[in-house]
Amino acid sequence: MSLWGDHFRVTTYGESHCRSVGCIVDGCPPGMQLTEDDIQPQMTRRRPGQSALTTPRDEKDRVEIQSGTEFGVTLGTPIGMVVRNEDQRPKDYCGSTMDLYPRPSHADFTYLQKYGVKASSGGGRSSARETIGRVAAGAIAEKYLRLSHNVEIVSFVSSVGNEHLFPPTPEHPSASTNPEFLQLLEKIDRQTVDSFAPIRCPDTEAAARMTKVVENFRDNHDSIGGTVTCVIRNVPVGLGEPCFDKLEAKLAHAMLSIPATKGFEIGSGFGGCEVPGSIHNDPFVAATAESGPQRLTTKTNNSGGIQGGISNGASIYFRVAFKPPATIGQAQTTATYDFEEGILEAKGRHDPCVVPRAVPIVEAMSSLVIMDALMAQYARESAKNLLPPLPNTVPTKPASAPNGAPAS
Amino acid sequence: MSLWGDHFRVTTYGESHCRSVGCIVDGCPPGMQLTEDDIQPQMTRRRPGQSALTTPRDEKDRVEIQSGTEFGVTLGTPIGMVVRNEDQRPKDYCGSTMDLYPRPSHADFTYLQKYGVKASSGGGRSSARETIGRVAAGAIAEKYLRLSHNVEIVSFVSSVGNEHLFPPTPEHPSASTNPEFLQLLEKIDRQTVDSFAPIRCPDTEAAARMTKVVENFRDNHDSIGGTVTCVIRNVPVGLGEPCFDKLEAKLAHAMLSIPATKGFEIGSGFGGCEVPGSIHNDPFVAATAESGPQRLTTKTNNSGGIQGGISNGASIYFRVAFKPPATIGQAQTTATYDFEEGILEAKGRHDPCVVPRAVPIVEAMSSLVIMDALMAQYARESAKNLLPPLPNTVPTKPASAPNGAPAS
Amino acid sequence: MSLWGDHFRVTTYGESHCRSVGCIVDGCPPGMQLTEDDIQPQMTRRRPGQSALTTPRDEKDRVEIQSGTEFGVTLGTPIGMVVRNEDQRPKDYCGSTMDLYPRPSHADFTYLQKYGVKASSGGGRSSARETIGRVAAGAIAEKYLRLSHNVEIVSFVSSVGNEHLFPPTPEHPSASTNPEFLQLLEKIDRQTVDSFAPIRCPDTEAAARMTKVVENFRDNHDSIGGTVTCVIRNVPVGLGEPCFDKLEAKLAHAMLSIPATKGFEIGSGFGGCEVPGSIHNDPFVAATAESGPQRLTTKTNNSGGIQGGISNGASIYFRVAFKPPATIGQAQTTATYDFEEGILEAKGRHDPCVVPRAVPIVEAMSSLVIMDALMAQYARESAKNLLPPLPNTVPTKPASAPNGAPAS
Amino acid sequence: MSLWGDHFRVTTYGESHCRSVGCIVDGCPPGMQLTEDDIQPQMTRRRPGQSALTTPRDEKDRVEIQSGTEFGVTLGTPIGMVVRNEDQRPKDYCGSTMDLYPRPSHADFTYLQKYGVKASSGGGRSSARETIGRVAAGAIAEKYLRLSHNVEIVSFVSSVGNEHLFPPTPEHPSASTNPEFLQLLEKIDRQTVDSFAPIRCPDTEAAARMTKVVENFRDNHDSIGGTVTCVIRNVPVGLGEPCFDKLEAKLAHAMLSIPATKGFEIGSGFGGCEVPGSIHNDPFVAATAESGPQRLTTKTNNSGGIQGGISNGASIYFRVAFKPPATIGQAQTTATYDFEEGILEAKGRHDPCVVPRAVPIVEAMSSLVIMDALMAQYARESAKNLLPPLPNTVPTKPASAPNGAPAS
Repeated sequence: MSLWGDHFRVTTYGESHCRSVGCIVDGCPPGMQLTEDDIQPQMTRRRPGQSALTTPRDEKDRVEIQSGTEFGVTLGTPIGMVVRNEDQRPKDYCGSTMDLYPRPSHADFTYLQKYGVKASSGGGRSSARETIGRVAAGAIAEKYLRLSHNVEIVSFVSSVGNEHLFPPTPEHPSASTNPEFLQLLEKIDRQTVDSFAPIRCPDTEAAARMTKVVENFRDNHDSIGGTVTCVIRNVPVGLGEPCFDKLEAKLAHAMLSIPATKGFEIGSGFGGCEVPGSIHNDPFVAATAESGPQRLTTKTNNSGGIQGGISNGASIYFRVAFKPPATIGQAQTTATYDFEEGILEAKGRHDPCVVPRAVPIVEAMSSLVIMDALMAQYARESAKNLLPPLPNTVPTKPASAPNGAPAS
Repeated sequence: MSLWGDHFRVTTYGESHCRSVGCIVDGCPPGMQLTEDDIQPQMTRRRPGQSALTTPRDEKDRVEIQSGTEFGVTLGTPIGMVVRNEDQRPKDYCGSTMDLYPRPSHADFTYLQKYGVKASSGGGRSSARETIGRVAAGAIAEKYLRLSHNVEIVSFVSSVGNEHLFPPTPEHPSASTNPEFLQLLEKIDRQTVDSFAPIRCPDTEAAARMTKVVENFRDNHDSIGGTVTCVIRNVPVGLGEPCFDKLEAKLAHAMLSIPATKGFEIGSGFGGCEVPGSIHNDPFVAATAESGPQRLTTKTNNSGGIQGGISNGASIYFRVAFKPPATIGQAQTTATYDFEEGILEAKGRHDPCVVPRAVPIVEAMSSLVIMDALMAQYARESAKNLLPPLPNTVPTKPASAPNGAPAS
Repeated sequence: MSLWGDHFRVTTYGESHCRSVGCIVDGCPPGMQLTEDDIQPQMTRRRPGQSALTTPRDEKDRVEIQSGTEFGVTLGTPIGMVVRNEDQRPKDYCGSTMDLYPRPSHADFTYLQKYGVKASSGGGRSSARETIGRVAAGAIAEKYLRLSHNVEIVSFVSSVGNEHLFPPTPEHPSASTNPEFLQLLEKIDRQTVDSFAPIRCPDTEAAARMTKVVENFRDNHDSIGGTVTCVIRNVPVGLGEPCFDKLEAKLAHAMLSIPATKGFEIGSGFGGCEVPGSIHNDPFVAATAESGPQRLTTKTNNSGGIQGGISNGASIYFRVAFKPPATIGQAQTTATYDFEEGILEAKGRHDPCVVPRAVPIVEAMSSLVIMDALMAQYARESAKNLLPPLPNTVPTKPASAPNGAPAS
Repeated sequence: MSLWGDHFRVTTYGESHCRSVGCIVDGCPPGMQLTEDDIQPQMTRRRPGQSALTTPRDEKDRVEIQSGTEFGVTLGTPIGMVVRNEDQRPKDYCGSTMDLYPRPSHADFTYLQKYGVKASSGGGRSSARETIGRVAAGAIAEKYLRLSHNVEIVSFVSSVGNEHLFPPTPEHPSASTNPEFLQLLEKIDRQTVDSFAPIRCPDTEAAARMTKVVENFRDNHDSIGGTVTCVIRNVPVGLGEPCFDKLEAKLAHAMLSIPATKGFEIGSGFGGCEVPGSIHNDPFVAATAESGPQRLTTKTNNSGGIQGGISNGASIYFRVAFKPPATIGQAQTTATYDFEEGILEAKGRHDPCVVPRAVPIVEAMSSLVIMDALMAQYARESAKNLLPPLPNTVPTKPASAPNGAPAS
């Protein structure tokens, strides 16, 4: 489906060669100041052509709000958003090699098999332009989360090829046990990440190593993958809807729906399988908040801010794997739609590594997941808060409300 | 939510100390032979107490079909299933340490924060008994998939701690480029997996290494994680609903909804980030099927059977990370609900590694994902097949139907 | 589907001759006292065999809560409920006329066409026993609504055949303009309705007329329809989710999903088409509440408590049409499944009029609609209340919260 | 929500004074020829300003397809559609009476209460312009239904005020027992309906009576309601998803979601409550089809083409009640937002009766309901058809497929 979310519902549309791409956001809270200026920055960060390391096309990608706001304030009604495609003309079918060959590891073949209609762009909605609607919608969710809970979402490149910001070591099979990594998660911001443009890895030395990898692959007309790490700070306690909609399950779903992704890990992740339980368990400690009520937090954070599918108030962090781009300059031996073996050569310049551009997309999908979980919990919590108190004989404890949330 | 699926909809209920656990399956195709005997085997494989390596409780877990079948045939109406809990009595609250302390890395704290009510079992639905409903429903989906498409779903343990069946190497940062691994995926079956009980790693030497790891952690009153690899063979081409419901995204969601999971990777996964695009791309070749129409397949399978979010007919395979169990025999320094530091000690014997028991649960969730995607594609395909043919001037090609599916 | 609701989600299962019928309620607010005693009264009101006017079978219909509560308090986890079927044996197929003939205006024919499997009861889930799950779930929603907002839901029989409690007149083509009718709506309660058992029309004279109609049809081995009117008092302002999920649209959906229903009208309804706009419009007046903040209400209530799909705080009322039961004692000329004309005779005693028994079912579905709309609005309102106030230059007004609801 | 449908999913956006209104259709079958020319006719029929009987504004309402088609063929991807608003400027707030008074029986009050933000148009999305997206999406569904099953959907005005095309009589309390009415349903087409423009009641004498009623109310600066009857012919057997999503329940939901509706009745409807069961039951007869397999149909059609919530192959018909428009020229005594009694006068010319313009909207919503039910049944049927045949000992019968649908 092209629908995401149960409460903050995003429906996207558009492929490469149609009039426009965009989305409808249904369920945005009313009464929030919102204009295109809140949305455009992430659109621009997503845009190709930002450096020699990424593809040189320059599409303007200006978003236009169609509905759902008046005088710069959300009405609570659906927010329609449109971004015009510069190149609206579907390509003619004139015997180009792309018409003969399904491109290896592209969606040409599967889209044709699934829909039975050959889109001029090959893979139809598998185009990266599809992500524009996600980023636009995510920017709205993000603004809400920031205004209401000071939620901060920051992604950065954590590896390119085999160059890692925090490579696994025998001592730290997962970076989650490495204090240096946890410190980075607490302080990193988007400005810092972008200061390491175009590679977006917030460490001078690692960024240099990664840039070199990308340059090498570019020069070889080859491509390479990498990982993006994302941290979400200040998430209220209590988000996530077990059993099937655990918060990490929704995050995994969201991330694996981004084109070219191959993996997701929350907190300690795959490396955490190698950490003994006695180290992996996150003991509780009383938080020494300067203000606000006393609360429990965890001393370590191998859980990645989620336990039993529910946020525990600690920073949520995860890592997403992106495969090497399928479009490469090298000739590839493959087969035509008519089962003939042959050689396919891509023309033009191609993006040797998509990971830096994926940064705002990962942030956008994160914000959609948190926003939706927040509204689900609000419905429950508000409902609960209207019930009469239980007799003392019943062994219950009132839940703490999310920061600033309504509580009886 | 406790609901999974859009077409084959599963709703589960039940926690540790209530009358029963179970589920309702709504949307099962009518006219399929089905009795408890089709369901019980996976229930039994999931059951604890199967060996010295897992927890010794023996619950019978007999499933009873309540509705939706007559004379052993599905009616197309909801199938209610119930499994009685042997121990139905909620625990009294009498000052046990568990009432004072939220257990580290359990769901006690987050459940209480989210719901504001303290379940006697601590984490309410975070209990492993919740997975009974998944396994029961999955067995029905699996039977349909086998009968209709000969789909085969097999999971096995691929690592415990740092002992791997196919450890990453410089040549094969991902097992996906290792022909030996791909061969295993094509031939492994459940009988073979279970012949390596209790560890369920289908390799004598690796099984021995892993067993040793588990025994060491058990003897140290500690715990350890591991990974489960799952392969799904004979999946029809064309399943998966982009953009947001790509097949790998739904699989990721399903897997991360299983208790204790920390990561998911499809095909080449995280290791695939280190493989050059020129190697990672899966070229097309004509399949040399003995019977049936000629078709394209891929020479390699780094994609894991999915391109652009849609199955391509090759085997789908993925890996799931499970953390070390949070309940350990060692004393842990942590804090009480009332912010006091103290020491928590768990009593009794505990499961030092859950990975072997997770095998049937991973299979169950896989079958639910494939079943739902299949029915979504059937709706589309049937609708398409009733349209008049398009004029020749339109550049389209009819989609191949899934094996045996209705085609015009 | 067998699923109702987005927030307070009810999934039902079961047909006539299976082990049990029941449902799972997912999304019930935690922290509410709840036992079987809260649910059984409406189950009993729904039960057949309560008088000579209805069918004499006596099924005990005892509900058993399976999960989701501990010590009589809801945990926030799914509440499984089971009601055993007394007669669990599917009927044998031995050449009875019912096996030869699809019964006229029953669901035998359409169920067989849809599912391709012949259930022993003929119409599978079209059985009235299916409504047991609805009533059980509705009782939980109703308890919440009563505790949190003092919502009162009362249904009664408003017509049987052509005998009406408030027949349309030239002056009042719709009862909505009749003050006597509106007064009844404000004061009627269930005890009063049941004091007019078995006919459940709360007016001595009208009840006598209706009873006579039912007796006549019973004596003629015929059947007759009727209408149920339902009022919902104390509904908070602001419920309903335009555009597609207007509150009256969800009520209409809910009511038309009850077996044997043929029509729904809200407020002035069909008769309101004949009332001039100048009379039909409901002018606003300041409510003279004894306590609480001043608020607007309407002088008249032709709208039935809903404007633009959203509750306005006035009493919601509507009417539901039930057809004459299809099972009659008279012989009917019809055709067999094999296209042969023949005569079908039903045996035994049958219910000549289902309307009185429909009363608790209409109430149950009403409570499910209001409960779901309430939680949707809570999510929005809580989200809105966390936003910073807007600058004065923006022409907005803060919404009043539902009675007692959280407001910033 | 602004989302309709589970398979053919329509999300609409837009209010009166924003840039555009429109929708996204997600799930349209691929491979169907589709251009704006297929959509515009119903858009134009919906448009105001078509005669002296309706409001004189002339908005062009040209629909533009944004995505989802190439070379005039659907791709199976989301179809974005946009209709520009001519008057895009939100109204200033300058002390107009509309800013002081919530208009009686409009949505001004409830929208403000629900969302807490005052839209310049008063009722936000309660505007009739919201229905543009419905009509655009409905035209696509309708084209599919026509191409695949020759489904015909025709609506017409059946009453205005107390002038009826088929007034209830003692013999025919419901028109459903009147053969003349049933004959009209079988032959009526849109061209005939529109030949009775502007009143759209397909009977010269009744149209004259109704036109007179509308003129009288117009001249008195008052307004009046009416009913629309809709027939859907050639619907395949087997559509509708019990228990909660019975076909009539979805139709009721769809119809009551149209602005200004107050009631819905299927088949015999409210009048059917007064018809004895012995007459109301629809006996089966063998259909005397000229071609195709023999099949059962019903001799009468009080059921309105639906039994047990599932289509039976007979024509589906229903009636929808529309209230008198709330905007009238007469002065009305009401209260301000600040609780002051005062007099509100509307300026300009207003539509005294919306029923004729509602005709294409009722058709659009009908097509969305049937389309969605069709795809749900296709998924089930295709799944069933892939199962191995059952042994003879099982008492089942294979379902007939919908006309032309895939069957094994």
